Amino acid sequence: MILTVTLNTALDITHRVPALKPHTSHRVTQVTERPGGKGLNVARVLAALGHEVTVTGFTGGATGRIVQDQLTAVPGVVDALVPVSAATRRTIAVVDEQTGDTTQLNEPGPTITSAEWSAFQEAYEDLLPSMAAVALCGSLPPGVPVGAYAGLVRLAKAAGVPVLLDTSGEPLRRGVAARPDLIKPNTEELAELTGSHEPLRATQDARRRGARAVVASLGTEGLLATTPEGRWRATPPARLHGNPTGAGDSAVAGLLSALVEQLPWPDRLSRAVALSAATVLAPAAGEFDREAYEELVGRVAVTGEVTAA
Amino acid sequence: MILTVTLNTALDITHRVPALKPHTSHRVTQVTERPGGKGLNVARVLAALGHEVTVTGFTGGATGRIVQDQLTAVPGVVDALVPVSAATRRTIAVVDEQTGDTTQLNEPGPTITSAEWSAFQEAYEDLLPSMAAVALCGSLPPGVPVGAYAGLVRLAKAAGVPVLLDTSGEPLRRGVAARPDLIKPNTEELAELTGSHEPLRATQDARRRGARAVVASLGTEGLLATTPEGRWRATPPARLHGNPTGAGDSAVAGLLSALVEQLPWPDRLSRAVALSAATVLAPAAGEFDREAYEELVGRVAVTGEVTAA
Repeated sequence: MILTVTLNTALDITHRVPALKPHTSHRVTQVTERPGGKGLNVARVLAALGHEVTVTGFTGGATGRIVQDQLTAVPGVVDALVPVSAATRRTIAVVDEQTGDTTQLNEPGPTITSAEWSAFQEAYEDLLPSMAAVALCGSLPPGVPVGAYAGLVRLAKAAGVPVLLDTSGEPLRRGVAARPDLIKPNTEELAELTGSHEPLRATQDARRRGARAVVASLGTEGLLATTPEGRWRATPPARLHGNPTGAGDSAVAGLLSALVEQLPWPDRLSRAVALSAATVLAPAAGEFDREAYEELVGRVAVTGEVTAA
Repeated sequence: MILTVTLNTALDITHRVPALKPHTSHRVTQVTERPGGKGLNVARVLAALGHEVTVTGFTGGATGRIVQDQLTAVPGVVDALVPVSAATRRTIAVVDEQTGDTTQLNEPGPTITSAEWSAFQEAYEDLLPSMAAVALCGSLPPGVPVGAYAGLVRLAKAAGVPVLLDTSGEPLRRGVAARPDLIKPNTEELAELTGSHEPLRATQDARRRGARAVVASLGTEGLLATTPEGRWRATPPARLHGNPTGAGDSAVAGLLSALVEQLPWPDRLSRAVALSAATVLAPAAGEFDREAYEELVGRVAVTGEVTAA
């Protein structure tokens, strides 16, 4: 069983409009809703890969009920979200049908009380012993202390559960200092953490700051991994066009599933790159195209060197 | 007791953003939610004026539950909404804090089944006998026949209850033919109904088509009433600046409350104009400024002539 943590869950709403014209009124032609927040996206991909996955984090209000109803309908996903009194946030993606461009509106998220934060930490500690790995994903809602992920990383390590941290800004900086097994920043997040825009140098610096392994997402150019076992670069077979929404979450699911299956690093990376690419190629945002994944996974180029023992 | 009918209720969401830039991502700085749809707005104003009001129409899903929870918290409002299986629509107003401009996204509304439409008509017929007046407000959700309002007007007349119709397009055209006591179109709706852009001519034409009385909204210039009792023009004391959202619904509430109180036409019109103006002046969209209303109501200029008996 894998655990994903999404402290700032969301109801992701997509509105298609014929053409977005600011300061006018629009008839929405199509509405879709799905559970959102990075950890929930990761859980869906893990479940699609055949892994059992438990999701935790916060849920509240009418939006939280929709998230839970849709989530528990996914086979292989166990709902262990902790109820809070404020409502789960919405994100709204307005898709302009003329240009295909997306305009995003992200609500700030519910304010979590200290009692709710304590209840979550207890629930998390109770879940850890039965988990093969844990992923801590996304932003923090208001009210949750900025050092939250550092504490959750320490609890996972104390329980002997491998922990992946995927966040940004100050929560990432603090979390890294607690020595997570793996972080998966994009180049921007990595530069913010280390001050370096040079990916190789930045991944090495992030390791010095506490991360055991660093897998940097280089966007369409694939992944760069700096680990105690060695350094690798994994590149998709071709430059892909499509919707990058959720591609990073699919990469996290790829890394985490392969870690649990005890695959060697090159196989972990090719799975992550292929899943990420198959997400970009899928017609629906955040889904992945299984056929494309299976076709791509053998064609990811992985180059690198193993660290001398 | 007054009845307002809102077949296409909504959850009105307002998102404030620092500046709306299409095709980028925005952090929403403030979220507000309130029950929406013309008839619910009319009901809130009627309740604020001290009238008991029952609201009916359709409600469904998680959005419908939020609408009902907020609505029943308003003193003086009785919830008689009919449950449906599809979810109540959302409308999203994105307010650009830099310019104050609003970009509107309107979801299409739930599809109503014929069984649900029949259930509504029965509930409506049961409610009518205890009502002093009824207002039929707004657009029709998918699945409701285009002649819906015509049928509801006939049922109200058969029950001897005065009926006001506030809609547009084909539902207005059909509804007018069923001879409602009052319609309150704006100049655009009136032109679409009659083919005439000349308000006096158009109101007379609308009466020939079946409306007993026509009160045309001339925007910032007030109201023009053509009735069996006479013709009047009611003008606010000054040109007002503010948010016109809900001004038309406040005018409907003014006309309806004054009708139930059996006030003469000039008093009905000055109340409607003052409420409308006090809604434009209120800081929150759709609310009215009570002090402004009380100050304005005596200063509305009403000119006109009574029809010779």
